[in-house]
Amino acid sequence: MSTAAERRDPIKPAARVARQNQDVWSIVNEAAAASPIQPIVNMGQGFFGYNPPQFVIDAAKASLDKVECNQYSPTKGRPRLKKAIANAYSPFFGREINPETEVTITTGANEGMLSAFMAFLEAGDEVIVFEPFFDQYISNIEMPGGKVVYVPMHPPPNGSTTTSSASEWKIDMEQFEAAITPRTRMVVLNSPHNPIGKVFSREELLAVGELCVKHGIIILSDEVYDRLYYVPFTRVATLSPEIDRLTLTVGSGGKNFYATGWRVGWLIGPENLIKYVSAAHTRICYSSVSPLQEATAVGFEEADKHDFWNQSKREMRAKMTKFNAVWDELGLPYSDPEGGYFVLVNMSRVKLPADYDFPPHVASRPRDFKLSWFLIKELGVAAIPPTEFFTPQNAHIVEDWLRFAVCKEDSVLENAMERLRGLKKYIH
Amino acid sequence: MSTAAERRDPIKPAARVARQNQDVWSIVNEAAAASPIQPIVNMGQGFFGYNPPQFVIDAAKASLDKVECNQYSPTKGRPRLKKAIANAYSPFFGREINPETEVTITTGANEGMLSAFMAFLEAGDEVIVFEPFFDQYISNIEMPGGKVVYVPMHPPPNGSTTTSSASEWKIDMEQFEAAITPRTRMVVLNSPHNPIGKVFSREELLAVGELCVKHGIIILSDEVYDRLYYVPFTRVATLSPEIDRLTLTVGSGGKNFYATGWRVGWLIGPENLIKYVSAAHTRICYSSVSPLQEATAVGFEEADKHDFWNQSKREMRAKMTKFNAVWDELGLPYSDPEGGYFVLVNMSRVKLPADYDFPPHVASRPRDFKLSWFLIKELGVAAIPPTEFFTPQNAHIVEDWLRFAVCKEDSVLENAMERLRGLKKYIH
Ligand SMILES: Cc1ncc(COP(=O)(O)O)c(C=O)c1O
Ligand SMILES: Cc1ncc(COP(=O)(O)O)c(C=O)c1O
Repeated sequence: MSTAAERRDPIKPAARVARQNQDVWSIVNEAAAASPIQPIVNMGQGFFGYNPPQFVIDAAKASLDKVECNQYSPTKGRPRLKKAIANAYSPFFGREINPETEVTITTGANEGMLSAFMAFLEAGDEVIVFEPFFDQYISNIEMPGGKVVYVPMHPPPNGSTTTSSASEWKIDMEQFEAAITPRTRMVVLNSPHNPIGKVFSREELLAVGELCVKHGIIILSDEVYDRLYYVPFTRVATLSPEIDRLTLTVGSGGKNFYATGWRVGWLIGPENLIKYVSAAHTRICYSSVSPLQEATAVGFEEADKHDFWNQSKREMRAKMTKFNAVWDELGLPYSDPEGGYFVLVNMSRVKLPADYDFPPHVASRPRDFKLSWFLIKELGVAAIPPTEFFTPQNAHIVEDWLRFAVCKEDSVLENAMERLRGLKKYIH
Repeated sequence: MSTAAERRDPIKPAARVARQNQDVWSIVNEAAAASPIQPIVNMGQGFFGYNPPQFVIDAAKASLDKVECNQYSPTKGRPRLKKAIANAYSPFFGREINPETEVTITTGANEGMLSAFMAFLEAGDEVIVFEPFFDQYISNIEMPGGKVVYVPMHPPPNGSTTTSSASEWKIDMEQFEAAITPRTRMVVLNSPHNPIGKVFSREELLAVGELCVKHGIIILSDEVYDRLYYVPFTRVATLSPEIDRLTLTVGSGGKNFYATGWRVGWLIGPENLIKYVSAAHTRICYSSVSPLQEATAVGFEEADKHDFWNQSKREMRAKMTKFNAVWDELGLPYSDPEGGYFVLVNMSRVKLPADYDFPPHVASRPRDFKLSWFLIKELGVAAIPPTEFFTPQNAHIVEDWLRFAVCKEDSVLENAMERLRGLKKYIH
């Protein structure tokens, strides 16, 4: 029986959700909706401007006619999808992946990573995350009470004056090792990287991996852009059996097959890690969406027949090259991506009008938020301010940059380029 | 820098997933797969043995052709689905539900309930759950560190000798009030109830609701079987504005439209509760599956035109009546359901052969596990042992019962009935 309870506010939220900051996506989307230029060309969020390939759509439709494809799947995923993934990835891993014990299906890569954190973090355990980071990592780590330890990546020294390869963003290995404590349980890697577009080299991954082996740290390797690389791509799990033993590799059907709204992801790793990830997943979502798991299985089974992976990479790279020509034209340097579909552009040469009227929630943020706002309002092109992917103390590193997603129809890219030429008069 | 870390086992799981008990679903499924009688008639898990209605399937297929239906939805759900749900439920709630602020879409009811617990529970906060309970509640409450406080429901006094209405399962309100402490943050209600089939009366709900108002406790009302009731159905949120203010109502597209594998659910409630639920959902799954949200929206929009809700209820009730005839025939009493698609059957009159050879993981469990095993192996019909939905100290309440799901094709029910007649020789 309670009397204290009678006076308590029953609707007080838990600390993990109490912070209700306006996130970057809402700020950009709201600005886009309110822009005088309509429709806006939205190169902000990384969703595709076109449909999944027809053979995958057809597979989804066919699965909707099958009774068992509309009902609960096993919590670890549909056997057909686990098998298709094991078959597709075994050659890359250089060993046979066991579909029953070394693959687990999740509700998008995002819930897959949450499951991994839920599986291994006790309150107060630390996870090392490199800045810039994909923003979902942070809340995913904080949900089970984990503590994020940030290690900054360093931008190309001449990034504000000359275009350089995304490979020039570097981890300082001494900073990384210094960040390791007895409470470090996991480290998050992301290659190809969002937002940098860097594909980590074999040497870089080996250096990180060996330190993780030395200190007994689980590696969560976010490889959702694994089919979009324009330089040789290395998977950290393949570097040694000791590293493999500690590595969970994350994939995304949404990213692979242009279907971010399907929410099919997976983790691949050793049985004694995967079993806890799937236990966590079962407690979070029970099971993942059945008909689209089935369609994703067909996607993997038939991709080679349709030469889909090569075509996908070729097309995305062509979009990237096409679009970046506008920066060459304008003389604005960018970080030339080695993979993925994001490009970071340096706008330090863009002079914003001194008397420009920014709303308070933008005026109070770093310069990239102002650049983003200005591009939306004056040119009708939306891009993401990347300081959102940094902690406040390191945000200055990218306050002159903006992130553009090129996974859009060519006509959209052309329209964006035409509008962006309007920047010329602000460049001095 | 760590030295301790070098000796630690890096793959130690977090406590929340360390318990890797074989759950009831795996035990039943494995037994079913190993039965000498094949194929088994599976009346265990509550998935549908038939497809969603054609107009909903067609809507899903049509949505797969639309670019925006294959990409990320807003984290709170697709506007069309939120609107369709607000329109469908406003008449039941007797007030206009605001689709933008009072509805949030989740990845099935399950992840919706997890989101609610994540939104309001700090470690050590208590949640009252009535026994028997749907098993997912427990892990969902434990994920954010909540503590489950169990209050048993009491079976019909003559349940082992005569068939009686599921309404005769009762909460003892004094036991309920005694379970409330200053740390009680939430109570879970479930009507129509799984596995009992009870539809809580207005008076029962009012008694629970008023105590929650008195003590400032949030009510999570799991109403996933809300379209399948065979007596008048009351929604707790509608009983008073004070109760409404504290109530989150949970729904499931999977249950409503025979598509448990679609993973579309929702919560309806006051804005100042819903906003935290959707904040938690965003941190768990980011957003839910887009094309099937769209199809679920069409399901709601067009259900009345197809007379779907009436037909759905009529059909399920007919299945229930049809199937339960076999118990009348065998003289086995059951708890006659007022809603949903589960029936609890009392098997105290079934004598299991004294020398029957049960495997150790079954032999060590209460009698209902043995009954379930025996029916699978000897008759080829799978049902669920309901002690799994009780704590060990109260398990004895249902150790003579089994739960059958009737959401199967009529031919399957007929086959099951034929097989179950084989029980006759064990009934004395
Ligand atoms: C680096 C990275 N990881 C994970 C995700 C999430 O993938 P999914 O949509 O499969 O949850 C994204 C999506 O933008 C991403 O950029
Ligand atoms: C009482 C109850 N609540 C919730 C659920 C889960 O619903 P969903 O499949 O939408 O997650 C079930 C499924 O069996 C259930 O029986």
